[in-house]
Amino acid sequence: MVDKKDRPLILVTNDDGIDSKGINELAIIASNFGNVYVVAPDKPQSGMSSAITLESIIRCNLHENVNSNIVKYSCTGTPVDCVKLAINKILPRKPDLVLSGINHGSNSSINVIYSGTMAAAFEGCLEKIPSIGFSLLDYSSNADFNHCTEIVHSIVEKILNNGLENGVCLNVNIPKKSNENIKGIKICRQADANWIEEFDERVDPKKLNYFWLTGTFVNYDSGNDTDEQALKENYISIVPVKYDLTDHNSISSLKKIF
Amino acid sequence: MVDKKDRPLILVTNDDGIDSKGINELAIIASNFGNVYVVAPDKPQSGMSSAITLESIIRCNLHENVNSNIVKYSCTGTPVDCVKLAINKILPRKPDLVLSGINHGSNSSINVIYSGTMAAAFEGCLEKIPSIGFSLLDYSSNADFNHCTEIVHSIVEKILNNGLENGVCLNVNIPKKSNENIKGIKICRQADANWIEEFDERVDPKKLNYFWLTGTFVNYDSGNDTDEQALKENYISIVPVKYDLTDHNSISSLKKIF
Repeated sequence: MVDKKDRPLILVTNDDGIDSKGINELAIIASNFGNVYVVAPDKPQSGMSSAITLESIIRCNLHENVNSNIVKYSCTGTPVDCVKLAINKILPRKPDLVLSGINHGSNSSINVIYSGTMAAAFEGCLEKIPSIGFSLLDYSSNADFNHCTEIVHSIVEKILNNGLENGVCLNVNIPKKSNENIKGIKICRQADANWIEEFDERVDPKKLNYFWLTGTFVNYDSGNDTDEQALKENYISIVPVKYDLTDHNSISSLKKIF
Repeated sequence: MVDKKDRPLILVTNDDGIDSKGINELAIIASNFGNVYVVAPDKPQSGMSSAITLESIIRCNLHENVNSNIVKYSCTGTPVDCVKLAINKILPRKPDLVLSGINHGSNSSINVIYSGTMAAAFEGCLEKIPSIGFSLLDYSSNADFNHCTEIVHSIVEKILNNGLENGVCLNVNIPKKSNENIKGIKICRQADANWIEEFDERVDPKKLNYFWLTGTFVNYDSGNDTDEQALKENYISIVPVKYDLTDHNSISSLKKIF
């Protein structure tokens, strides 16, 4: 693909894998705005957070020349590996925008910590590139993304025009397709929620036990300004998230103890 | 091990693996304060961040009964899997403290995002348990931890006595052993730093190319109140970190755009 310098260069990635429906939808939307490089994991990498591959090698190969605006590279690593490799080795220059998703399933509230989708957006943000993670509240591999097109298009357009503050990226969650119309967009904070684990303990044919990680999501937060509340009311939630994890409010109280 | 209810129950984990020197040091220090369950990965899991195992099974087995105060379980999963499994399946009750480390290598500034050690501390914090991640600025598998004993002992004692605010855990980094005395403890913020990737591109015997992820750490932050600065001056750095990733300052400016 020729790097047309008058058009934005957009990196698209995800954690569901390069052939998932959500990333293809996102690449098509992105190609309305610029030249798109999809650099994404060759297999599902959900729940990989900001994991990086330190103990083994990474391979990354051309997957498909979709059209004159979209080229796809498949990578054996994690979502964060994909972003690092894309920026450093695959793309002709630093991209103008990093888009991650559209994830099959919610990345609202505490899911932001475990999400490979959002980790990829963080990574773009760390490189001082405006970055957005998109998720649809539908885990199905064949989820209906039709209602997402206009929403994602409009958010990408706004961020290309307005930029984002350094150190901040966006966590966008979109309600599942339903008969009810989506009410609009709410800028929110991350709800204080958690997973209550319920490990499924089993015995294998050799009589050895093993576990599957499962759990139930619990929202402890009754605030009206959270992403969970917005989604419950059928709004799109946008949470500005940052990679400075310091709890600045605790610094003075800790200084009294130490 | 009998659960002596008059003594604190302490969970110890790490990302370097159950047989690393650092976790053994930490377990011994912890056993001065309470009954210790070590539940840790069976192999190195550095750079695993908050990754969780969703696509495959997890095994967790008794590894060693060290003495009447320390028992060790080895787990095939990530550091976060270990904490989840420990709290839900292995320990007799919810622990009073989660300690992670002592990591072989720094987890200061941006490393907090990729670190499995700190992810385990986050996970304890999410469960509303006081949690601390300890790291030594020495990557060697045979690192000298002698100077850490007194420091770690004192920090654990302070947190057992004072607790920690809900939603906040500590990222403690300790300078490498040297002839110079450590100057003390500084409560800091996370420095604004990043890794500049330098992928090492090679060709395998089948003439196919592959990559090793390497990089150079760059500190962009000239502040005097950062963890990087404290460590440079031979202080121990303690950063209070939180899992609410919302950038609350951006909410009002984003509301003007959307």
